[in-house]
Amino acid sequence: MNGNNCDKLVLKVKKIDLEAGGTYVVVLNKKLAEKSGIKSTDRALIKKGRKAHVGAINITSSGVLEDEIGVFNEWQEVELRNGEKIEVNIVGKPSALEAVRKKIFGEKLTKTEIYDIIHDITFNEMTQVEIAGFVVAVHIRGMDLVETANLTKAMVEYGQVLKLSGTVVNKHCIGGVAGNRTTPIVVSIIAESGLKIPKTSSRSITSPAGTADTVEFFADVSFNVKDLKKIIDKTNGCMVWGGSLDLAPADDKIIKVEKQLSIDPENQMLASVMAKISAVSAKYAVIDIPVGKEAKINDLKDANRLKEKFIGLGQLLGIKTSVLITDAKQPIGNGVGPALETRDVLYVLMNDKRRPLDLEEKALRLAGELLEITGKAKDGYGLAKKILDSGRAYKKFKEIIKAQRGNPEIMPDDIKTGNISFEFKSNKSGKITKLNNKIIVDLCKRLGNPIDKRAGIYLHKKIGDEVKSGELLMTLYAEIERKLERTKEILKDKKNNPYSII
Amino acid sequence: MNGNNCDKLVLKVKKIDLEAGGTYVVVLNKKLAEKSGIKSTDRALIKKGRKAHVGAINITSSGVLEDEIGVFNEWQEVELRNGEKIEVNIVGKPSALEAVRKKIFGEKLTKTEIYDIIHDITFNEMTQVEIAGFVVAVHIRGMDLVETANLTKAMVEYGQVLKLSGTVVNKHCIGGVAGNRTTPIVVSIIAESGLKIPKTSSRSITSPAGTADTVEFFADVSFNVKDLKKIIDKTNGCMVWGGSLDLAPADDKIIKVEKQLSIDPENQMLASVMAKISAVSAKYAVIDIPVGKEAKINDLKDANRLKEKFIGLGQLLGIKTSVLITDAKQPIGNGVGPALETRDVLYVLMNDKRRPLDLEEKALRLAGELLEITGKAKDGYGLAKKILDSGRAYKKFKEIIKAQRGNPEIMPDDIKTGNISFEFKSNKSGKITKLNNKIIVDLCKRLGNPIDKRAGIYLHKKIGDEVKSGELLMTLYAEIERKLERTKEILKDKKNNPYSII
Repeated sequence: MNGNNCDKLVLKVKKIDLEAGGTYVVVLNKKLAEKSGIKSTDRALIKKGRKAHVGAINITSSGVLEDEIGVFNEWQEVELRNGEKIEVNIVGKPSALEAVRKKIFGEKLTKTEIYDIIHDITFNEMTQVEIAGFVVAVHIRGMDLVETANLTKAMVEYGQVLKLSGTVVNKHCIGGVAGNRTTPIVVSIIAESGLKIPKTSSRSITSPAGTADTVEFFADVSFNVKDLKKIIDKTNGCMVWGGSLDLAPADDKIIKVEKQLSIDPENQMLASVMAKISAVSAKYAVIDIPVGKEAKINDLKDANRLKEKFIGLGQLLGIKTSVLITDAKQPIGNGVGPALETRDVLYVLMNDKRRPLDLEEKALRLAGELLEITGKAKDGYGLAKKILDSGRAYKKFKEIIKAQRGNPEIMPDDIKTGNISFEFKSNKSGKITKLNNKIIVDLCKRLGNPIDKRAGIYLHKKIGDEVKSGELLMTLYAEIERKLERTKEILKDKKNNPYSII
Repeated sequence: MNGNNCDKLVLKVKKIDLEAGGTYVVVLNKKLAEKSGIKSTDRALIKKGRKAHVGAINITSSGVLEDEIGVFNEWQEVELRNGEKIEVNIVGKPSALEAVRKKIFGEKLTKTEIYDIIHDITFNEMTQVEIAGFVVAVHIRGMDLVETANLTKAMVEYGQVLKLSGTVVNKHCIGGVAGNRTTPIVVSIIAESGLKIPKTSSRSITSPAGTADTVEFFADVSFNVKDLKKIIDKTNGCMVWGGSLDLAPADDKIIKVEKQLSIDPENQMLASVMAKISAVSAKYAVIDIPVGKEAKINDLKDANRLKEKFIGLGQLLGIKTSVLITDAKQPIGNGVGPALETRDVLYVLMNDKRRPLDLEEKALRLAGELLEITGKAKDGYGLAKKILDSGRAYKKFKEIIKAQRGNPEIMPDDIKTGNISFEFKSNKSGKITKLNNKIIVDLCKRLGNPIDKRAGIYLHKKIGDEVKSGELLMTLYAEIERKLERTKEILKDKKNNPYSII
């Protein structure tokens, strides 16, 4: 300390048992802060070895002594020891803020500027407000393909990379259609075919379930890179949660802010998808773009525009990318919500008669495409079907589940739904002409998804089916009575009925 | 508590001596959080009487008990007592977020939507990320005049309003030129003329000094509305810090986020200025728009466009608004930085021979305009000059300073500058053709402004002056040696010399 102002302090670590929702918080003594001209709007940079973090400053008059720095639980990652002396830098605005402002003002960003931003996001040197500024600016101003490629590369380079040999492939769906749980099926088929498919998934942002949310019913989804490599070396595949791997960590931090604002800028989404693929060393990828009136992408024109972007971005990144534009006029499969989707997946893999054929068909198309672009098969769909029908995909699935410390013998009926339910019946007879995806998603969220994993909707009827008055259309499941009651209330309004029957 | 999920909890208050830089933080026990499905990304709404705040949630396993809620110092405002039982609501996203998203997507906002946003900002029901989303969206997408008027009204209505009778006027400068400390002079002249001028000012965001930063050398600037009313009833005027008054409190919260991003969206600025004027019941206003190559507004076209907006907005708000476009090709006055600007103000009021004539001239023009638009004088400038030259303005100034609990007998030499200084001399002879405002501002910030109030620059020469080689151009003052040394270093580079001499 050097009198009434300082940029650099040496302080003793005092661990404080508090969590601030992922924000790195340090606590400084009020007298020290006054002496040093530190305000609670300043930031503190702590470096230890290769780990560095910028934290927000809280000020206390009694919680820590003048020569101490309190650190919240979030600092665990930096591996600070109680009582150890560390150097603390009081820092101002990050240099990347200039680049964020450039994007706000509508300018193109250079490679260096994008790397600056992603560096500072990765190492927590930007505040949530600054990340929000970046996200909103990118949403409104957009990015060109070169900017997006640089964004992707930066996100990958500042994180861990899963290095794998052999022919590594991946698939990704941009989301927007309920029940679309193809991943476990595609991974099982592809891994069985001899290709490597290290599949990482996210947890749900705005949908009833993410793949990671469902896979958790079978097995663990959190692994470090070392353990993950073992799983893939052994089985050729995996289906894990990306968040635990520190692959493209900036992406998760950006998504956290997007989530708060309920926005999903297209270029960020492109970069996010391709970063996940690039970070696991995949050189081939199939992207699923569901298109439907109530899906994320509403018309074919938008879907084709996005398709071109994915293919172009793939070229810039050295990833051979194929895009399937798929039908999202209604949910895929019968179950929506983590538990019910998990059941559907098992039905398909086990060739159970209750399996939803549309989910099976879609998984086969995606797997088939991967088999074709890698040159593994001329008739990819045919090979995929053979692998699935023979039970080899199910065997491979059990192998992967076991490697992921799960229970390979899990049966569909082992997966419990919420213990309160409601049967929604048709009030007229006729043919189902529409089944509104958006309403289903909304109802599932009201029922508790994605947090209440056993909540959800089972669709007994889908488009084209005949229905009689009084016949069961869908069953609603919830874990919490109030949520079920409120959802039933909503359903009383005719406009919230997802089914159109003529 | 009702089992494994709840929206509403009753908990015992436990005050925690921590500050989080203005963020309202509550601390919940980990077990309680797990039982109730509360995550550290959720928010807690605490209501007590008319006070309500949403806080961020920190989670601890030992800091508070299961039936307690820890509250940081920021919660003082809600007047919680240690040990009292309060109701805590765990809340999701605010309804205003939909409106923020509408603006992100480029749509016009209705009156209700804007009131929603400002309500939630005022009562801390939006996070910093959401406010950032709003600010950036408004910056990029803009607002029309009706939206801006609604924004202004909402900011005023959700705060305190200073109710005054008589002819209430105001002035405001949009900023962007250094040394422009006309306020104390204009207030003194106008209050002496019989008009009421309740002037609130901000602290500096990006300039070396705000008016509130300088007035503090004379007197207190923080008052509540009741005390302020007494000051104005007694003296017709005041010059106080707006932040202490809770006038348009949302504005301050928005500015705090703008500051973090170093942006200043035009419509937000318009609303901010007019809200300050409207919240003190002013029906007449003069706006100063400085124009210069290195000022905030660079050309006459922009200035005129902004002028039209101010006048139009004034009409929608029932405030007769006159706009003066003023010259900002160089700093106003000789001193830049809180202490040095304060001296200049005293020189002018005391008719001291050291007074900067450009500052005096500008203050007279602004005061004159106010006297004319209110019908107080046909030759406003003449009346203003008479009031200033006669010493009546200085007498009024002392009255106001006394009412603001200050020292009316303060002399220019009582205002100490930083005790370390550097004389910057000319290395050639000639005539000064340019004096770069932006460089002066940058140097002042390097010297420590606005935080180090006694730092700053005294300009011995201005545009048009003749100078000899070796003659003094400016004196740099600092409070902290390192800052002076670094600034001297910067000045060694020719491109950082603010003076052009031919």
